[in-house]
Amino acid sequence: MRAVDLIRRKRDGHPLTHAEIDWLIQGIANGAVADYQWAALLMAILWRGLNDDETASLTRAMLHSGHVLDLSRIPGPKVDKHSTGGVGDKTSLILAPIAAACGVIVPMVSGRGLGHTGGTLDKLESIPGFDVRLSTDRFHQVLAQCGLALIGQTDEIAPADRTLYSLRDATATVESIPLITASILSKKLAEGLDGLVLDVKTGDGAFMTSEGEARRLAASMTQICTALGTPAVALLTRMDQPLGNAVGNANEVRECIDVLRGGGPPDLVLLSIELAAEMIALAKIEPDLEHARNRAHRVLQDGSALICFRKVIEAQNGDPHVLDDPEHRLPQAPVHLEVSAPRRGFITRLSASAIGLISMRLGAGRSRVDSIIDHRVGVTLRRKLGEEVEGGDALAIILAADAASAERAAAEFLETAVDFAEQPPNVPPLILDRLA
Amino acid sequence: MRAVDLIRRKRDGHPLTHAEIDWLIQGIANGAVADYQWAALLMAILWRGLNDDETASLTRAMLHSGHVLDLSRIPGPKVDKHSTGGVGDKTSLILAPIAAACGVIVPMVSGRGLGHTGGTLDKLESIPGFDVRLSTDRFHQVLAQCGLALIGQTDEIAPADRTLYSLRDATATVESIPLITASILSKKLAEGLDGLVLDVKTGDGAFMTSEGEARRLAASMTQICTALGTPAVALLTRMDQPLGNAVGNANEVRECIDVLRGGGPPDLVLLSIELAAEMIALAKIEPDLEHARNRAHRVLQDGSALICFRKVIEAQNGDPHVLDDPEHRLPQAPVHLEVSAPRRGFITRLSASAIGLISMRLGAGRSRVDSIIDHRVGVTLRRKLGEEVEGGDALAIILAADAASAERAAAEFLETAVDFAEQPPNVPPLILDRLA
Repeated sequence: MRAVDLIRRKRDGHPLTHAEIDWLIQGIANGAVADYQWAALLMAILWRGLNDDETASLTRAMLHSGHVLDLSRIPGPKVDKHSTGGVGDKTSLILAPIAAACGVIVPMVSGRGLGHTGGTLDKLESIPGFDVRLSTDRFHQVLAQCGLALIGQTDEIAPADRTLYSLRDATATVESIPLITASILSKKLAEGLDGLVLDVKTGDGAFMTSEGEARRLAASMTQICTALGTPAVALLTRMDQPLGNAVGNANEVRECIDVLRGGGPPDLVLLSIELAAEMIALAKIEPDLEHARNRAHRVLQDGSALICFRKVIEAQNGDPHVLDDPEHRLPQAPVHLEVSAPRRGFITRLSASAIGLISMRLGAGRSRVDSIIDHRVGVTLRRKLGEEVEGGDALAIILAADAASAERAAAEFLETAVDFAEQPPNVPPLILDRLA
Repeated sequence: MRAVDLIRRKRDGHPLTHAEIDWLIQGIANGAVADYQWAALLMAILWRGLNDDETASLTRAMLHSGHVLDLSRIPGPKVDKHSTGGVGDKTSLILAPIAAACGVIVPMVSGRGLGHTGGTLDKLESIPGFDVRLSTDRFHQVLAQCGLALIGQTDEIAPADRTLYSLRDATATVESIPLITASILSKKLAEGLDGLVLDVKTGDGAFMTSEGEARRLAASMTQICTALGTPAVALLTRMDQPLGNAVGNANEVRECIDVLRGGGPPDLVLLSIELAAEMIALAKIEPDLEHARNRAHRVLQDGSALICFRKVIEAQNGDPHVLDDPEHRLPQAPVHLEVSAPRRGFITRLSASAIGLISMRLGAGRSRVDSIIDHRVGVTLRRKLGEEVEGGDALAIILAADAASAERAAAEFLETAVDFAEQPPNVPPLILDRLA
């Protein structure tokens, strides 16, 4: 086989075979395919697309470019959730303990935040001592003991995806649904799952701003994942405003603890329960979604989800007292500044991407992959989309490292993140659709 | 500027500015643009195309990535010819001496053959001693003294084109009219020309098999060349059968000497005169093509073109006695084998590409860039397309290094290169069109 012939075939709109795609992915490691050949092929794929067979072959080849977890020694159904990412999207820290409390084994491998979106690992690391880098042995132990384990991606998982992702990032070939599908699924399926729940977000704070594109991605991922033998369900959800009220790492952990204690904002509770219910149903622990939803509610109300979270924090060297006194045990920002409404009216826009960028500039996120995170800072919303406010009402609290950055963030909030009108806006439902 | 943003713009079908294209080409040498980024950009260009302004900018940027000859010290108009290549295409060795004999300065920088097509440098090197690697100083001297000089491409000419050509070759991005235009013109315009004649071939032995594509390439090259300040004319010519009768290096030089002595096959004479006349007219040595054609005929008939060829052979260390006794002074193949017609009929196909491949396998050409050439071998046609033959008539003579390869070539000739029918075929004219 010659790479140039396979590039030509894709360039001319013809499908590649399973063996050819295998050879191309193996060629990354064995040197048979140069990075400039993959770069040209990625552009040809962005142009011509991949059919479902090709996407499944690419996913499988990327998955097998690295280590696939064998969790067969741990009894119980293994199910995880993946979100395409957003602002204030902290459901992992809530649904993983809920699902584990119901008997699902949740081997969660997460990423870090970049740009306006946060990452689960950064949130976890705001818990003093919490270690996201476990050895494979220790990961198995924590999983067997707690029913969940929360770690970062290792070099052994899907190394071909890492190479291709760097190339895509440098060659404007990120925005291809089959390539996104293969990238996400190759990493998630390396967890050795029996089922996968996908939260595909759309709106101004999402990776896919257009609903049509997000719907196509959700359909592609559920279809390919199921075709590869792992049943999958996707929820298509809005990301126009932040999810919940808290944005920023320690701030979001605090809100998760609220939810696990039976409180928290309704949108966050709703989506966390719904995603957890999908996991419980996929795991076949309950016969249908209705029962799964009730069970999820129950473990939240009776405190057993919180107990699971406590166990995993202890097992991963974190300070469990954050659960008893989150206000003082989690890192706190020295400066709190209220943002007040400049006029009366209905909130018609509360931009997730703008609030994500404000939080990033406060220090909660990364403008570059090597930026250093300040776990203390962020934004807490006091009002959400569609609510009516009077002039002077509190819209949000800025959590900042110093007064100057707090003032800047507050001004930016009023300038870029929020609009008002006389008439209430039409607020779309949080969960737009379910694809299975 | 960031390469990824420019790739994205081209990917989305938007034009790039002159400054952006300059920056991208300079980025090859200064490292600002990685080869994998150029590879993705090349695929995006193949997909989206380049408009005339972009193609002109790319040509100019590639031209100025290297050394541009300054021939201002040599008086007289500098005009060259470029052919897109074919089988038996040996017009350079005829028209360069004709044009020089008429007062045109011909600074001809040529390439080597690859695959089924031959290269001018390989033909010249079948003349014992002929040196195609002259220093810049010596090149100027030969040009001033003979009115023509025949050399190979140097590392100093359009180095960006060399990098991009290797990438295109490895990434299936060769077949793009704007990229072909920029590649050819950046090298030719580095000769410091006042005019350029293009021979754009179409048919089974040509780089562009489709007439429509060849016509588009001819139009693109004349337009861009003229836009860059160098008047250009293109002839669109057929390459279904070999040009002339001789294929193979020494064999083709022998046929060129025939023509320069007033003989030779009519198709080769016709095209050589026509291309030379275009050069003479572009050089403004004659007021129109009719006068230029007459003048070209005159210098062929009176022997002054042959004298120019003798002068350049001597100046470039070749053996001038090849002109007096080409049969014995040029390398001769030890085995000559006649291929006979298996039946009577009209020759309806005499495939240039098949005959080019037969000649390549005999040793006259390169299957890989590092193949070694046997200057002695090749094929001489005794009959051409449309002629009527009786069973047993000689169709061609195979010139081979040994009997076995001659037998193989003869069998291949009958199997792959020639078809017969009862009715005479419709043979299209050699020169299909002229674009200025």
